[in-house]
Amino acid sequence: MDATEQSLRQSLSEKSSSVESQGNAVRALKASRAAKPEIDAAIDLLNKLKLEKSTVEKQLQSIITSSGNGSLNREAFRQAVVNTLERRLFYIPAFKIYRGVAGLFDYGPPGCAVKSNVLSFWRQHFILEENMLEVDCPCVTPEVVLKASGHVDKFTDLMVKDEKTGTCYRADHLLKDYCTDKVEKDLTISAEKAAEFKDVLAVMEDYSPEELGAKLKEYGITAPDTKNPLSDPYPFNLMFQTSIGPSGLIPGYMRPETAQGIFVNFKDLYYYNGRKLPFAAAQIGQAFRNEISPRQGLLRVREFTLAEIEHFVDPENKSHPKFPDGTVNNETLGYFIGRVYLFLTRLGIDKERLRFRQHLANEMAHYAADCWDAEIESSYGWIECVGIADRSAYDLRAHSEKSGVALVAEEKYAEPKEVEKLVINPVKKELGLAFKGNQKNVVESLEAMNEKEAMEMKASLESKGEVEFYVCTLEKNVIIKKNMVSISKEKKKEHQRVFTPSVIEPSFGIGRIIYCLYEHCFSTRPSKAGDEQLNVFRFPPLVAPIKCTVFPLVQNQQFEEATKVISKELTSVGISHKIDITGTSIGKRYARTDELGVPFAITVDSDTSVTIRERDSKDQVRVSLEEAASVVSSVAEGKMTWQDVWARFPHHSSATADE
Amino acid sequence: MDATEQSLRQSLSEKSSSVESQGNAVRALKASRAAKPEIDAAIDLLNKLKLEKSTVEKQLQSIITSSGNGSLNREAFRQAVVNTLERRLFYIPAFKIYRGVAGLFDYGPPGCAVKSNVLSFWRQHFILEENMLEVDCPCVTPEVVLKASGHVDKFTDLMVKDEKTGTCYRADHLLKDYCTDKVEKDLTISAEKAAEFKDVLAVMEDYSPEELGAKLKEYGITAPDTKNPLSDPYPFNLMFQTSIGPSGLIPGYMRPETAQGIFVNFKDLYYYNGRKLPFAAAQIGQAFRNEISPRQGLLRVREFTLAEIEHFVDPENKSHPKFPDGTVNNETLGYFIGRVYLFLTRLGIDKERLRFRQHLANEMAHYAADCWDAEIESSYGWIECVGIADRSAYDLRAHSEKSGVALVAEEKYAEPKEVEKLVINPVKKELGLAFKGNQKNVVESLEAMNEKEAMEMKASLESKGEVEFYVCTLEKNVIIKKNMVSISKEKKKEHQRVFTPSVIEPSFGIGRIIYCLYEHCFSTRPSKAGDEQLNVFRFPPLVAPIKCTVFPLVQNQQFEEATKVISKELTSVGISHKIDITGTSIGKRYARTDELGVPFAITVDSDTSVTIRERDSKDQVRVSLEEAASVVSSVAEGKMTWQDVWARFPHHSSATADE
Repeated sequence: MDATEQSLRQSLSEKSSSVESQGNAVRALKASRAAKPEIDAAIDLLNKLKLEKSTVEKQLQSIITSSGNGSLNREAFRQAVVNTLERRLFYIPAFKIYRGVAGLFDYGPPGCAVKSNVLSFWRQHFILEENMLEVDCPCVTPEVVLKASGHVDKFTDLMVKDEKTGTCYRADHLLKDYCTDKVEKDLTISAEKAAEFKDVLAVMEDYSPEELGAKLKEYGITAPDTKNPLSDPYPFNLMFQTSIGPSGLIPGYMRPETAQGIFVNFKDLYYYNGRKLPFAAAQIGQAFRNEISPRQGLLRVREFTLAEIEHFVDPENKSHPKFPDGTVNNETLGYFIGRVYLFLTRLGIDKERLRFRQHLANEMAHYAADCWDAEIESSYGWIECVGIADRSAYDLRAHSEKSGVALVAEEKYAEPKEVEKLVINPVKKELGLAFKGNQKNVVESLEAMNEKEAMEMKASLESKGEVEFYVCTLEKNVIIKKNMVSISKEKKKEHQRVFTPSVIEPSFGIGRIIYCLYEHCFSTRPSKAGDEQLNVFRFPPLVAPIKCTVFPLVQNQQFEEATKVISKELTSVGISHKIDITGTSIGKRYARTDELGVPFAITVDSDTSVTIRERDSKDQVRVSLEEAASVVSSVAEGKMTWQDVWARFPHHSSATADE
Repeated sequence: MDATEQSLRQSLSEKSSSVESQGNAVRALKASRAAKPEIDAAIDLLNKLKLEKSTVEKQLQSIITSSGNGSLNREAFRQAVVNTLERRLFYIPAFKIYRGVAGLFDYGPPGCAVKSNVLSFWRQHFILEENMLEVDCPCVTPEVVLKASGHVDKFTDLMVKDEKTGTCYRADHLLKDYCTDKVEKDLTISAEKAAEFKDVLAVMEDYSPEELGAKLKEYGITAPDTKNPLSDPYPFNLMFQTSIGPSGLIPGYMRPETAQGIFVNFKDLYYYNGRKLPFAAAQIGQAFRNEISPRQGLLRVREFTLAEIEHFVDPENKSHPKFPDGTVNNETLGYFIGRVYLFLTRLGIDKERLRFRQHLANEMAHYAADCWDAEIESSYGWIECVGIADRSAYDLRAHSEKSGVALVAEEKYAEPKEVEKLVINPVKKELGLAFKGNQKNVVESLEAMNEKEAMEMKASLESKGEVEFYVCTLEKNVIIKKNMVSISKEKKKEHQRVFTPSVIEPSFGIGRIIYCLYEHCFSTRPSKAGDEQLNVFRFPPLVAPIKCTVFPLVQNQQFEEATKVISKELTSVGISHKIDITGTSIGKRYARTDELGVPFAITVDSDTSVTIRERDSKDQVRVSLEEAASVVSSVAEGKMTWQDVWARFPHHSSATADE
């Protein structure tokens, strides 16, 4: 909490006391039937104090709004974006005619086109340019795989239930909402209390179920819908469960991430890559998380498209092969941060509202050793859209162990290496005689000695002939004599090093990126008449759902023919487009196309030439019928800028049109 | 069964009898110690008869093999294709390190690339060129949707269980296997018996569970793995079931088709399309079917990618708007057959092994009114890869009814139409007096009369004053008098016609198409030395997983630099490629790249020019370093043919290389 907020809260609480006591004073004067001038003076003072209190209140409110998250403006902005998105079918709640299912959404035609453009660019930017090995694995996954990966045991959120209705809530969300509300909307709480709530918000991800439960009780938090008491928090597994095959005996889950499909294929992929490291595999596909109470629209959903990269490296050498290109910096994680930055900004994400943040230890998933998030600022605050995690060797080790198939890489030495290996040989016969039934425990403890312990024992045995030795499984010391064990170091030739590769995983939440992109590209501008605000999505051509619209100015056969010619040419150069032959005014048709984020509009107003309009500048040029498609395609594909077009072709004034 | 097969089976059975009786005769002569010349003569005759029998056997076998399905050659061919596909990671069984799950497969890097090419082309060929509305809906689907669509009740296969081990089998598969085996491999059965088995194969899809069970019993069919007895057949629902949300109270399924996501959005899509028919919506996505016993590799799997089109039309006007283009024929179904044909053949499906077949009534899904399949011939026989179904108004009506939201279209009349409507007004007071507790049944029956019935009653009442009337819910006749009902025809003005659109659905099984494509593109040819057969996938560039490989002839800095230049240019023109710097011979590298179906190979053998080799002809031309990428891109994208290239550039003899 900054100093200003603290002093304002302090001052507000003082002003409130003053108002209260002056109010009491006025009431006392009235009760004692004091003289009117006296009462009027007291009332004047009360009004003055109330005004002072209200001024401080406004100051505090404005500080909270701007530094906190400006929730009111943000909500209005979000509402405008979401209304436009739903009205134009970018996305809609799924199964709407059946009143929907929380956390499931459909992408309509423009949303699909944007998604398909984002995924194509992702495939180009990562898989093709980086020569990654793409795989495509099933969503239905047998339990054994997700048991090994830890998801069956650990992929949970803490849940509380309304004790009367059984309605479920995410425990941390209730606490977070309560604290956020207090901090942002309750002006009456003291500076100390506000600081406490902010503290809770900062550390709550670290709470155990018990601590979280205690906080909910301490604050008296109840079920938001009914105000009924809540159960204690308990873990709920977020995977959708099912059963594979007709017997009902093979439990399965819908995958919660696409990564496991890559890990279980490591061996084949490593061979496919000529047994060389590093290499990356990638997968685009659906993932499923049965969220307890989905909210925030497209940001927390129960089914979503992930695009994940698993970059396998030698843990002793995490340098990236493209380092010599100098593109970014000297190690894999850094290289990916750079590539992700380029990917997101080229899509149209605002550079100023994109940051990379290292996870705190308490935020990391059960498999991660280090994690950097690409966070994008939206009306919901900073949203994790890409996680770049160092999963180390966690998953490959887990699957090696569970499946019995070694998921390892080898480094062949140029020349065989001579290595010294510790060899501990317990002499079982002597140990059996000495320790009888305890022999096995002693043998295991001897074999488990590290190099230092073993060499110390060797020295002691050589000098003293015997030594005291603690056997932890017996919880006591035993006496080891010289004839009971031989300890030595032996030289061996090794031809290769066998190791489990580490994995760096950049994981992209495609739906989240698309939603943030919608917010960053959305703006409004007054109509020409100035009587309304028009919505514009300023998508870069790369992601725009349609690249171009074609409008015959009026409906006649001549213009219709010209429109057909242009449409055919646009198709042949691969530019997606839409023909709008509705009779409405050109101005209205431009407005409709702006709202879909279409960057270019061709208006057919003659049978020899047409105008091309650029969405953001609203500038128009006149181009011959034959050139129109190729000009649009050049700008849309970035081979030419709009400035180039503006410099080359005669300008067209829209005075004649009705925009 | 054709006449030849019938007469051969007849003749074989006669020859068998002759051999048997002559065998008996020889044994009898020996037993009676007949004279040696007599025995020798009998043995000669036996041998002659055996030879005749064996000749007939061979003829029959060869007839069955060629007309039936040549199962032996086919299986060898399939094994060669599948081995190559699995070895090169086109696809592999999913979760292999855990010994896999039947019916689940992973696509490895080349398989992914082929799939992505097929889907891109699909999107181009159907969605973009036909201006379809693409949607993208969740796989997780609440039960209410699939209850309405009929899948919860009817999406089943008949299953039998091994009565001792509980292993499950698809009942019709067991019967089919048994009959096919008898027809194709058992030469001893009579012509009549063979005809019977062929009959069963033709009609078995029509069997009720009871009939199927009876046939299994009649033929004594047991569990294939154990020979244990089987249970009676019973229906098993093929959907993967799950539960949505933390309460466990919302049952859900993984969608068995993508179509339902489109149907439930009909209203929004219709408005999006400006309330005009016809229009088509399309969806590409995963679908899930919990097959009882998956087999036939990629052809019958538990999770697969579907690409589905729902083309909504006025049921009274199924003409297609592109009919004036003259592309195919005069109605929607025919138009789609043409588009599907173009799609499949451009991918590389052999025209000669593609057919469109109309479904028999017994083959159609519960929702279909008419259905044409695009079937592709593979080593498994003719495989349904695209179904083009007329689903009529089945789904929209079902969802309207269940959700209470009208999924209809309107046709505005140019001028209001005057229509005559039948009006039946039961007079409840009189009916109540006459029928008391049965009044409701009588009222409902009166209101349910069709026009003919009502007008007949009207006439009778007017002439006779009363009439006998059968009330089916009461199962008896009642007497209706003139004062109990008024029947009239009224003229009304109607401004529009409201109707439920019909749907034509072309549905593409992407995995099946890809598998058939693999078989059609696969071939072998001898290596140069003639000592081995090399595999080649003759993919058209459109679907080839990689368009080009680049080989530096030897490893040196000069060639490496040239390789980098070419690689950069290929990337900039969007041609996916792979650099092979392994030290093996050029011949081996060509063989490796042929096996992946890469259509072009650039060999860097100088720093100013390179050779380009075409996969199928193995022809090579010499091209300057600068031109190489653009030549490859022109041929790969169909802007130029290889013949053009061959005519334009100097030929390169591979004599120097070791191919």
